[in-house]
Amino acid sequence: MLYLDNAATTRMPDEVLRAMWAYLSEEFANASSVHAAGQRARDAVDWGRSTVAQLLGGRPSDIVFTSGGTEANNLAVKGLALANPRGRHLVTTAIEHPSVIESCRYLERFHGFELSYVPVDYFGRVAPDALAEALRDDTSLVSIGLANNEVGTVQPIRALADVAHERGALMHTDAVQAVGSLSVSAAELGVDALSCSAHKLGGPKGVGALFRRRSLAIEPVLHGGGQERGARSGTEHVAGIVGFAAAAQLLLGNPDIEQDREELAKSRASLVQRVGKAVPDALLTGDPFARLPGHASWCFTGVSGESIVVALDAAGIAASSGSACAAGHDEPSPVLLAMGLSREVAQSAVRLSLLRPLEPAEADLVVDVLTNAASTRRLQRDVGGAAVR
Amino acid sequence: MLYLDNAATTRMPDEVLRAMWAYLSEEFANASSVHAAGQRARDAVDWGRSTVAQLLGGRPSDIVFTSGGTEANNLAVKGLALANPRGRHLVTTAIEHPSVIESCRYLERFHGFELSYVPVDYFGRVAPDALAEALRDDTSLVSIGLANNEVGTVQPIRALADVAHERGALMHTDAVQAVGSLSVSAAELGVDALSCSAHKLGGPKGVGALFRRRSLAIEPVLHGGGQERGARSGTEHVAGIVGFAAAAQLLLGNPDIEQDREELAKSRASLVQRVGKAVPDALLTGDPFARLPGHASWCFTGVSGESIVVALDAAGIAASSGSACAAGHDEPSPVLLAMGLSREVAQSAVRLSLLRPLEPAEADLVVDVLTNAASTRRLQRDVGGAAVR
Repeated sequence: MLYLDNAATTRMPDEVLRAMWAYLSEEFANASSVHAAGQRARDAVDWGRSTVAQLLGGRPSDIVFTSGGTEANNLAVKGLALANPRGRHLVTTAIEHPSVIESCRYLERFHGFELSYVPVDYFGRVAPDALAEALRDDTSLVSIGLANNEVGTVQPIRALADVAHERGALMHTDAVQAVGSLSVSAAELGVDALSCSAHKLGGPKGVGALFRRRSLAIEPVLHGGGQERGARSGTEHVAGIVGFAAAAQLLLGNPDIEQDREELAKSRASLVQRVGKAVPDALLTGDPFARLPGHASWCFTGVSGESIVVALDAAGIAASSGSACAAGHDEPSPVLLAMGLSREVAQSAVRLSLLRPLEPAEADLVVDVLTNAASTRRLQRDVGGAAVR
Repeated sequence: MLYLDNAATTRMPDEVLRAMWAYLSEEFANASSVHAAGQRARDAVDWGRSTVAQLLGGRPSDIVFTSGGTEANNLAVKGLALANPRGRHLVTTAIEHPSVIESCRYLERFHGFELSYVPVDYFGRVAPDALAEALRDDTSLVSIGLANNEVGTVQPIRALADVAHERGALMHTDAVQAVGSLSVSAAELGVDALSCSAHKLGGPKGVGALFRRRSLAIEPVLHGGGQERGARSGTEHVAGIVGFAAAAQLLLGNPDIEQDREELAKSRASLVQRVGKAVPDALLTGDPFARLPGHASWCFTGVSGESIVVALDAAGIAASSGSACAAGHDEPSPVLLAMGLSREVAQSAVRLSLLRPLEPAEADLVVDVLTNAASTRRLQRDVGGAAVR
């Protein structure tokens, strides 16, 4: 299998599995237990917290471990908005992950918040000026993702955070898709909160983290025994946290990471160029330049994106027609609609997300299958249309 | 190490680790992906759902996978109360797990609910008549745990559910501590919702389940991509779900399980008897008869429970002074206070939770260490007190 769906989830490197193994087997104790076994589990959680803090550009006390990116986004949006009620106005965009948008809507439905969406341009970019216009004196929180999961566009979060802070609002960024693909530092981005998921960067599923400045009050989403300094209750997922940290260590310990990312971006650019030549009306979605290095996404107007994914799958290539969350839904992607694409075009989306440069033979295969799938499917549609007419 | 802290968490049997392994390594895909690898992950989640449904006495469509027992309790209490607003009154007890009580308090603080606590007796039992008195015409939800995590008392949930239903309220039971130790069937208990955690029954940390009758509306706690039929968003924790189901299979497939539990209860009863003889003022907490088979808990008045746990640990025995959540806190257990014990007595609690009968040498060791620890610590306290005087 040629796995080009790393935006949906990633394979865990052996180093990560090895690090987790002890905590799945011998070292199984509850990290909140007083006995020696419990303290060893606690030490592992502490090590995980320091390592993840380093990855995200924060201090250990800024990190709250969660069950994943969705919970981190829920905690950031609901937790900060409810605990810091400067006013009941939230600002986000229509291209955010559903865990951000649906958390905002929950606050709208149950807590009387108002919600404004900053428009995005054709490349999925949010302009600082557009954010400035959406802000109000009663805006509690701005939530804008660092990199979009469907089209790969990377936002100017530092500039957006400055605009939010000038008006006195808190700034959260969903960095689930970015951490691992880019060097991300909450401190350098100047955000108050930042979400991250382990399984998007070589760690296990079932664990994520919210960076939030420790001085900020936060209302938990999961209430209970008071773990994570009261910010998130529930028995610590020790093996998951260790796997998360081991994946973070691989990133932190790679001296060639920037060069690796440049080579990945080159491979992606070459693929995009070849697909553009082979399928003339293939439409690259997202920002051509400010995008995740391994992320390629197109619309193949007139062809269902899902049918192309099926054709790729039949050729042994794992890809996606958009976010995994939306897979199987018939609705066109709200992200693409917000970028100004029509419903028909939006239904023809295909996403390839690479972790390493493609070998020449791999690139040939991808281009061939995409070309054939796009033209065959379009032909079938034309013939079908003619037959109906 | 003699691990007698199975109420805090359990070791995963090799069969469970083996079942998980494939989904931690080769079969790492996102269960929401359309490609073949994604579909294999989806099949694993479906298998997990059927198996856990069988364990809990429900149908697959009744099961919502969560990140653990705490999330299951949050989802049950908040999700049912917010989506089925017959009124804004909740009924629970003061001996519930913090994830139940703090979820109720969240509804009180943010959603205008009122909260009533049904009293418990000296053994930690809730009488159906006492519940009937607490119910009102505007009671939306009753939440009472099936087995208490600190004192092991098992409640007459079927009778309590009948009382709740007669008054038109929904009934939730936190069965986190019970499933695995007892045969639990949501259908037979007649409850509308039931919480369960994998790591308490030989499965992994980071995964749990809420059984809830599928026809019941539920407001999610984690909003987002709409996984779990919209009841709980977030990328499915595939390996965790498979491990949970593998642990469930071991329970379901053990033809001798009732006999094993009887033998465990006998071993526990013998230990309780020996400790009672060796430490005359050891006070068994919880119901002497209607209790979890492997659960022994005492107060050793005048001695700090934590100091006994430390002495046990030094002898290689892992135990607890109460719930793991509360470990390290100085406050006496609210459970013991609600049962009518004084603050001083409540601070002397020790819990041993067994998974299998003790070998004779193991039992000897436990009794010896408990006896010495209780008398030595009391002696030190007496001497210390004298010195101060």
